[in-house]
Amino acid sequence: MKILLIGASGTLGKAIDQELRERHEIVRIGHSSGDFQVDITDTASIRHLFEQTGPFDALISATGKVHFADLADMGDAEFTVGLRDKLMGQVNLVLIGREYANEGASFTLTSGVLSEDPIRYGSSASMVNAAIEGFVRGAAIELPRGLRLNAVSPTIVRESLPALGEYFRGWKAIPAADAALAYAKSAEGLQTGQVYKVW
Amino acid sequence: MKILLIGASGTLGKAIDQELRERHEIVRIGHSSGDFQVDITDTASIRHLFEQTGPFDALISATGKVHFADLADMGDAEFTVGLRDKLMGQVNLVLIGREYANEGASFTLTSGVLSEDPIRYGSSASMVNAAIEGFVRGAAIELPRGLRLNAVSPTIVRESLPALGEYFRGWKAIPAADAALAYAKSAEGLQTGQVYKVW
Repeated sequence: MKILLIGASGTLGKAIDQELRERHEIVRIGHSSGDFQVDITDTASIRHLFEQTGPFDALISATGKVHFADLADMGDAEFTVGLRDKLMGQVNLVLIGREYANEGASFTLTSGVLSEDPIRYGSSASMVNAAIEGFVRGAAIELPRGLRLNAVSPTIVRESLPALGEYFRGWKAIPAADAALAYAKSAEGLQTGQVYKVW
Repeated sequence: MKILLIGASGTLGKAIDQELRERHEIVRIGHSSGDFQVDITDTASIRHLFEQTGPFDALISATGKVHFADLADMGDAEFTVGLRDKLMGQVNLVLIGREYANEGASFTLTSGVLSEDPIRYGSSASMVNAAIEGFVRGAAIELPRGLRLNAVSPTIVRESLPALGEYFRGWKAIPAADAALAYAKSAEGLQTGQVYKVW
């Protein structure tokens, strides 16, 4: 399969690449690195990406920013960051990418454990991750041409503990390679409308 | 209690009003009717509302629009309608309203069954309803002064079947009065961070 991997240089992206590269052609895409670049908050940039990559069999998105802060300091603008980036950035990869996807191609987005299990400073992440999961359930049943759509919801990964561990005290971290398996299950399997929880 | 009821003239709003008005002071708020008016897509309008109502003990929101359409006709702009209205409209009622809420006051938002159980034309509703539920779980744990935050997720209500029944074939409709009980449970109880599913 020809797999577009958005966020290829990130912690999850590198593990997904490692999991899939022996069996598939991986097109590595980043904000500023990789075979191609994209700004997922810009629909013109997304369309330009697909004009460059051409048709594909799977798209995996392991990218997207949200604003982490004390709820006391969160207003409309701070919540909008995650709605435009991690949520609509990934949603627009599907809405625009479907025009370039081969029959039966799959889209796999990334949500995260905070949709169900919240932390301090994580109100936007909880909102955005849940929204991605709702979108996946809602949109999957309407996709034509056998196109599939799933999400992977990883918990905190071991490789991120040095940077993020203080916010996840008590969480059992997983290796990024374990999360990568769920992306393979989505891209190489036949399920659709699923949220694969890896925690 | 002094309860602000946003969307008081709607199907759910009228049932909530009926359930609560014998025990509480209800301030009825609508887009163009009621004691006060508000446009929940406009943060200045929301702030103006609270300047008029003054402090309150409970806020119940039973309002918010999303765009229903075939996924094939849904792009960034169509999804943004629900993000600005039903999602951020209700979220901003909390983010701004918290400044005017009495200690221990509650906020109760409305999501809906499509977050988990999707229908044709409902991809935006599935996204937005799930986002509201994620926000409730994430933000509830960070609220100060004993403020509480819950959501009610009703299924299709019997009173809406003439208008919406064709989109919900096979769903078991409930009386709006049953959904109204969940708003009472949220406002008159002590739980927080909960999503009350009424289906």
